[in-house]
Amino acid sequence: MTAFDLDPASARGLLSGTIAPGLDDDDVMRRWSLAAWNTLTEPGDRVAVRLIAALGATDSLRELLTRGVGAPGPASVDVSREEYAAAVERWRPRLNPRTVWDSLATARRSGARLLVPEDPEWPGQLADLGDHLPLCLWVRGHTSVLAGLRPSVAIVGARAATGYGEHVASELAAELAGTGIPIVSGAAYGIDGVAHRSALAVGGRTVALLAGGVERPYPAGHAQLIERIVGTGAVASEVPCGSAPTKWRFLQRNRLIAALADATVVVEAGWRSGSLNTAGHAGTLGRALGAVPGPVTSAASAGCHRLLREFDATCITSAADVRELLGVTSVEEFGAGMGAGRPRTDDRMRVRDALSTRAWRDPEDVARRAGMARSEVESILGLLALEGESEAGASGWRRVPGSVS
Amino acid sequence: MTAFDLDPASARGLLSGTIAPGLDDDDVMRRWSLAAWNTLTEPGDRVAVRLIAALGATDSLRELLTRGVGAPGPASVDVSREEYAAAVERWRPRLNPRTVWDSLATARRSGARLLVPEDPEWPGQLADLGDHLPLCLWVRGHTSVLAGLRPSVAIVGARAATGYGEHVASELAAELAGTGIPIVSGAAYGIDGVAHRSALAVGGRTVALLAGGVERPYPAGHAQLIERIVGTGAVASEVPCGSAPTKWRFLQRNRLIAALADATVVVEAGWRSGSLNTAGHAGTLGRALGAVPGPVTSAASAGCHRLLREFDATCITSAADVRELLGVTSVEEFGAGMGAGRPRTDDRMRVRDALSTRAWRDPEDVARRAGMARSEVESILGLLALEGESEAGASGWRRVPGSVS
Repeated sequence: MTAFDLDPASARGLLSGTIAPGLDDDDVMRRWSLAAWNTLTEPGDRVAVRLIAALGATDSLRELLTRGVGAPGPASVDVSREEYAAAVERWRPRLNPRTVWDSLATARRSGARLLVPEDPEWPGQLADLGDHLPLCLWVRGHTSVLAGLRPSVAIVGARAATGYGEHVASELAAELAGTGIPIVSGAAYGIDGVAHRSALAVGGRTVALLAGGVERPYPAGHAQLIERIVGTGAVASEVPCGSAPTKWRFLQRNRLIAALADATVVVEAGWRSGSLNTAGHAGTLGRALGAVPGPVTSAASAGCHRLLREFDATCITSAADVRELLGVTSVEEFGAGMGAGRPRTDDRMRVRDALSTRAWRDPEDVARRAGMARSEVESILGLLALEGESEAGASGWRRVPGSVS
Repeated sequence: MTAFDLDPASARGLLSGTIAPGLDDDDVMRRWSLAAWNTLTEPGDRVAVRLIAALGATDSLRELLTRGVGAPGPASVDVSREEYAAAVERWRPRLNPRTVWDSLATARRSGARLLVPEDPEWPGQLADLGDHLPLCLWVRGHTSVLAGLRPSVAIVGARAATGYGEHVASELAAELAGTGIPIVSGAAYGIDGVAHRSALAVGGRTVALLAGGVERPYPAGHAQLIERIVGTGAVASEVPCGSAPTKWRFLQRNRLIAALADATVVVEAGWRSGSLNTAGHAGTLGRALGAVPGPVTSAASAGCHRLLREFDATCITSAADVRELLGVTSVEEFGAGMGAGRPRTDDRMRVRDALSTRAWRDPEDVARRAGMARSEVESILGLLALEGESEAGASGWRRVPGSVS
């Protein structure tokens, strides 16, 4: 097992192409160690995260390699002896340097970059994941896009989307991406794919998070779409290149989507859709959560309505609603014509109600019909006349036929 | 003007048919006075409500008739001198006993009953309206239905409803009315009409509140529907018989719908629909408020989405949701299959992910693939085997083809 314990020059060789040039030996060894840890763990391994946070990637890997199974964990790490022992037992079956070499070779071939938390392009908002921080990210495409996701919105939803859902996802993604807000999603069929495609169509930025290795397009039918995302955006994954997408990894991938974006909007989702899992992560992380309503008769919207009912999601009907959710709203888009500061609407209505378009009525009659004082009625009649809604004749007042009622 | 000041026998004659027999003279005079006040005021006249609350209907009417215009209001009434003077000025043009006689004659002819707050059938929940309490209600049909609205639900919405909205309104009203929950609405075209009709179709109870006189079917096209409601339910209004429905009275009628029902559910509503006014009253009164979502592409649902976004309405997708809003839910309807108390779902998922339906894998291999300890994997493999999801062979374990994944 000591083959993990390479010299820096060998590590540099194995990592070449996946890391920035010019890193010093310690930087290189930390990245090598993280790449090794990456093969030992499944996403969301809190013991590994704590161990690495306490000792650093290199020393924690050496600790694992030199200690016997069942030894107590390092004293400086906030993990119980039992938890540490259980973790060592689950890492042990995977202790194989060959796996790391293979994943790095695959990464090199596919042009994947290794991003670690100390890199300047690392998306700092992932820190909100705490113990469930990914150890690293594998990225194809533009790491700058991945680094520029504040603000951004995750648009996710059912694979079995309806024409309605695809229409709404497409409109939202196009309008948001077209005005500079990147779209994060999961590259799945249905809503995810429409969101990415629509962002690309308007020349916007988009980021896809994959559950398997970043070099492995999933679903296969989206291979071309994923290559297009690589071209102008970014495709990222926290599992080593060569990894298969498993259900567990899909669920963990969802937490990355929720954590990277400032808001998650679910466009369509069945009652138990996986996108509700993404929504749940968004809620846990304190990210804004939106759901697009649909017909209550549509099973494809049942999950969205559940989010509105049970998870206090915000009802999203337009890109403007999403911008409001993100807090990037311009004032003039909202509250237009909401009727603030219109005095005496009630009295005007009552006077209008009391007028006829046919019969001329004297102010006393109008006052009686409106149930208002004559003096007040007379002043409102004058006001309505100024606005062309009423007119005075020899025998009283009437409503101008065809005026706004 | 002294003709308001009748002897009890005359008042009894004029009110005959509209009030219960056997009332004493004071009871009769109070009802006569309220019927008179009813013709002097428009709905929601808080000065009249306060005056009558402080002095009683009879004495307050006498006060009005005997005091000169501009005199200060009675000292025991919490109304400023200016407010009282303004009120007298708006009541004065309507002081005409003939109007009361005519409205009572119309009420008698149409079989309308006069309900006042001291009547046993008076819906006590109206007290929540405070200063905006109606002075009385005119009722055709069964006053017992009007008295039995706890619990009940108001189902209201756009006149210009879509087929979708009518379908949902019909389903909701039929299921709720069919299980004993009365439906309150406004007898308008569109959602209101569908809600009443659907309640009638299942033999349920329904109450229509009108903006004009209770003898005057409005809209005229719903004359037959309104007669059917009179047959088994109740049709009510707070304005005197013979009154035209005006815009003001529609808005005030909406407050009665909101106050009578325990919850208001808006099924479809345009961005400025009148049913949002009913919803606003429900909110102000602390009544539960629900809105049925629809396609965001449908203008007929825009008002519902606005209620969900801006007014914290509950998202309603089914009659069960309405029952939950009313607090009359039976436990078994909710939470079915919500997955509480299922231990170790994550670990089971990871073990299933690590199995193949084709290749047989030894537990060490499965543990490595799952990123879990071998001992734990072995116990889960056993559990999955018991449930028919995995099976052991000579060379290891596999997932049973066709088993639930």
